[in-house]
Amino acid sequence: MSYFEKHVFFCTNQRPNNESCCADCHASAAHAHAKERIKKLGLNGQGKIRMNKAGCLDRCDEGPVMVVYPEGVWYTYVDISDVDEIIDSHLVGGEIVERLRLP
Amino acid sequence: MSYFEKHVFFCTNQRPNNESCCADCHASAAHAHAKERIKKLGLNGQGKIRMNKAGCLDRCDEGPVMVVYPEGVWYTYVDISDVDEIIDSHLVGGEIVERLRLP
Repeated sequence: MSYFEKHVFFCTNQRPNNESCCADCHASAAHAHAKERIKKLGLNGQGKIRMNKAGCLDRCDEGPVMVVYPEGVWYTYVDISDVDEIIDSHLVGGEIVERLRLP
Repeated sequence: MSYFEKHVFFCTNQRPNNESCCADCHASAAHAHAKERIKKLGLNGQGKIRMNKAGCLDRCDEGPVMVVYPEGVWYTYVDISDVDEIIDSHLVGGEIVERLRLP
């Protein structure tokens, strides 16, 4: 069994030279919101869910991006309500949010 | 199939207040070395291997730590030669390095 049941990585990278990147799309705020929500649900910690910041996930053109392991499902999101939907539907309910999923 | 065949996250977090953390163990240098080595081997990119920096992976007492997805195998390492062994044995050869593996 994995150390975390779900390990989620938000790209929060800030590219130099004002190039567009996930950090421009409030990725750090999205991560912070997700982490707090999981905590409030009592789902954070070993054997449960971990929300992590990550460096550049190398899918800049599709950003902002996040990835859920171990299943390796990638998402983009526009706002906090999208993040909430991913948490409620996928992480808690086990159902992938196809409308936000990246190929 | 996953976007990356192997997605590796190095904790490169720097804790405040001089608390011991992965960043004190040259984690950023280890990540940079691993990224460069994978590139030299021609194994970086979509469908292959991605070496990522990550925020705190929440296993500080066992650090420095890294995790390999999708299999969810966690490692600690002491120096660059350990990182090379993980690359050669696990990422390239498919054989987990048990002596460095975390439970």
